[in-house]
Amino acid sequence: MSEGDPNGQTVPGERSPGFGYVTPSNVAMLVDLYELAMADSYLRNGMNGRATFALFVRSLPPNRAFLVSAGIDTALACLETLRFEDEAIRYLRGLRLFSEQFLEYLRGFRFTGDARAIPEGEVFFPPEPLLEISAPRIEAQIVETLLLNTLNFQVMVASKAARAVLAARGRGVVDFSPRRDHGADAALKAARAAYIAGCTGTSNVLAGMLYGIPVVGTMAHSYIMSFSDELEAFRAFARDFPTNAVLLIDTYDTMQGVANAITVGREMASAGARLRGVRIDSGDLTAQSRAVRAALDAAGMREAQIFLSGDLNEYRIAEMLAQGAAADAFGVGTELGTSADAPSVGGVYKLVEDEKGYRVKLSTGKATLPGRKQVWRSTDPNGQPSGDLIALHDEPGPPGSIPLLVHVMKAGVRLLSDPLCEIRGRCTERLASLPEELCRLEDAVAYHVALSPGLAALRERMRS
Amino acid sequence: MSEGDPNGQTVPGERSPGFGYVTPSNVAMLVDLYELAMADSYLRNGMNGRATFALFVRSLPPNRAFLVSAGIDTALACLETLRFEDEAIRYLRGLRLFSEQFLEYLRGFRFTGDARAIPEGEVFFPPEPLLEISAPRIEAQIVETLLLNTLNFQVMVASKAARAVLAARGRGVVDFSPRRDHGADAALKAARAAYIAGCTGTSNVLAGMLYGIPVVGTMAHSYIMSFSDELEAFRAFARDFPTNAVLLIDTYDTMQGVANAITVGREMASAGARLRGVRIDSGDLTAQSRAVRAALDAAGMREAQIFLSGDLNEYRIAEMLAQGAAADAFGVGTELGTSADAPSVGGVYKLVEDEKGYRVKLSTGKATLPGRKQVWRSTDPNGQPSGDLIALHDEPGPPGSIPLLVHVMKAGVRLLSDPLCEIRGRCTERLASLPEELCRLEDAVAYHVALSPGLAALRERMRS
Repeated sequence: MSEGDPNGQTVPGERSPGFGYVTPSNVAMLVDLYELAMADSYLRNGMNGRATFALFVRSLPPNRAFLVSAGIDTALACLETLRFEDEAIRYLRGLRLFSEQFLEYLRGFRFTGDARAIPEGEVFFPPEPLLEISAPRIEAQIVETLLLNTLNFQVMVASKAARAVLAARGRGVVDFSPRRDHGADAALKAARAAYIAGCTGTSNVLAGMLYGIPVVGTMAHSYIMSFSDELEAFRAFARDFPTNAVLLIDTYDTMQGVANAITVGREMASAGARLRGVRIDSGDLTAQSRAVRAALDAAGMREAQIFLSGDLNEYRIAEMLAQGAAADAFGVGTELGTSADAPSVGGVYKLVEDEKGYRVKLSTGKATLPGRKQVWRSTDPNGQPSGDLIALHDEPGPPGSIPLLVHVMKAGVRLLSDPLCEIRGRCTERLASLPEELCRLEDAVAYHVALSPGLAALRERMRS
Repeated sequence: MSEGDPNGQTVPGERSPGFGYVTPSNVAMLVDLYELAMADSYLRNGMNGRATFALFVRSLPPNRAFLVSAGIDTALACLETLRFEDEAIRYLRGLRLFSEQFLEYLRGFRFTGDARAIPEGEVFFPPEPLLEISAPRIEAQIVETLLLNTLNFQVMVASKAARAVLAARGRGVVDFSPRRDHGADAALKAARAAYIAGCTGTSNVLAGMLYGIPVVGTMAHSYIMSFSDELEAFRAFARDFPTNAVLLIDTYDTMQGVANAITVGREMASAGARLRGVRIDSGDLTAQSRAVRAALDAAGMREAQIFLSGDLNEYRIAEMLAQGAAADAFGVGTELGTSADAPSVGGVYKLVEDEKGYRVKLSTGKATLPGRKQVWRSTDPNGQPSGDLIALHDEPGPPGSIPLLVHVMKAGVRLLSDPLCEIRGRCTERLASLPEELCRLEDAVAYHVALSPGLAALRERMRS
């Protein structure tokens, strides 16, 4: 679907371009205009030596004690095939800003750089470099917007989802966010990031198809209301989905609802099927879930699960469980997909080294650390992370510590593309290894991140 | 780029599917699983009569006094071409949930419904129907997730951006949000929604290409730092962009920066070009902008503009202008694209009428209004909106009032596809017509929205 203007004109409103899809053919244009302006100027001034940019987060978002790496592979997959197609070149020419030399450069553009990153699913902390890009300066410059757009978002969702997963203490957490996510791509990538962080599935069928994430769903109140009564609706659904029936029991009255679900569950059992569970979406979820659990148990349906949903977040989940809610899984929507209490992660992308040597920005509050780096993580005898050291890339780490940054792209080709289940496994392992004081939803203790002697000395040298 | 699994398997992590693009071929799968489960059940139970669903917002998000319609045309453009392709059918079959009859139905799926909507750019209020879909029940059900995903987001951004535009009192506001937007589609649609609300442009080149929105950009601190000194950097940029040079002057020292900009501006003038302006991105923007304005004026450069950016939002803009900041335009990023103080709009999509008649949901706090509707807006003698009346679609409105909902789609084809500049013009007009007490950033007065006698009576009848 081409939606561009063949004449490269930019007069607003001349046409109605439809939905507006971001595709492999146009995603290179998801770039802040100034990146292209600077790139053109670098080209004209012969400034295209190799440079390294670091992508890092300056400080933790509100209520967060750690961040979860996510989005690396999607971002790099995008770089692998980044092209400026004819339509893009025509449009850019029509802006009358750029040199023909630069437009010609863009026509042949390929990303040929190297990348090192903290693997997806790993826990990390400001101001550790999440990603380092080493490439000809123009290439490295042009991909800034796309990298930040992808990583800021997926890190945000994974870090939020990890909190819900921790709060659920082993119970399932399902991504129910598509209708409140910020557009189509957000819905897709939120499901991915949430799954990395340990969510058990998503309601988003597209994420199931593209990423192989388990898809989960029950029914809406409107389904129940479309039948003449609740029992009839339950019977129809159980007949149509004998292996997967999760019945929504709060449309009219939850206790009558569970009674109807038990009736249908018995009918299913006598036909050789089994009621999978029930969902409660409104009201006092804690009290209702306990009463429903008791009713199901009394009916001999101990295996029927209880799903809770409705404006949930990590705080509500923790509170309900502390009060003894009976839940097997939680559906979390808006709060998870928009990270409602911290709806952005402030990742930045800064020049740290070029052909002239180390580079640094010194402004108060916006300082950067020079050079390519490595992050070394130490663990205590129990295997709990006890502190990270940010060092220059060629400095040795402390004895027994583990380096976090690994090579993920060489000359524009991904080296490493872990299956999503492995990434998720890594995250589950890391979250389990975190000290309790880091996992608290509130008043978490700050994790210890230090600079290596070499890096600290270099920074001091560059300051003076 | 096909990223699906030809075997329709859903085991997570078997493959690395790359970036994950939402395309015209797979966007139909951006659907919550339960929509498809319910649809299958409706099909098997012969429940596919014509139904009407209303999309509306139950209550205003925090800090909002009105909402701006946005996203209608993008959503409907998507419905026009919605298809379930072979890859999707294969994947769904692999889930072993759905009937072959339903998969066959999906293979031939076309959206054939009608839609009425409050036009984009118009101001509206809860619980007015923003969109009404009338279609065979299964079609109307299947598009719920996609409609909510699209409209909740664009309404959110347009409503946030309108506040920044009002706060700027005629000065420009530019969307600088791509690096903090929630993914690729969010960046594209945020630019569109912000432009509708009156923003003057975007930094997002893709939004420029696809929607014809004016693109804006200057340079980054890293550009300045890539030259041996600031003056050299300014000279290079001015030489490369003689008609569009906006120089970033706060990398080292803002007053020295403006002195360098003036030097370069004079050199440009003697070469027949003209310095377009300067940008300040950090520090005390109010004080600096006044000093910079004075320096530019003293140098005879009254036409050189001042752009301000750096963690701005509507409150900061209003505060700076109240304190006498000298600004021609503001770049607003994170706060605009993520609507940081209210990062979601709680639009819902509810059945209001079907072949059996009016339908209603009665639960406390989640009640819906039955039937197809019209919203009538009254204005006072000054042309200011004075109150809205939500009525049944065939009730007459109050004398002199104007109906807001118009037909936008007939039998699956868009009727109306206003150019973006017209939509933006409508929004500008409406914002200008709003009473002052509705435009306040804080403590705005609630707008009067009432139910018609016919609608109120119908609701009472259905309650009892």
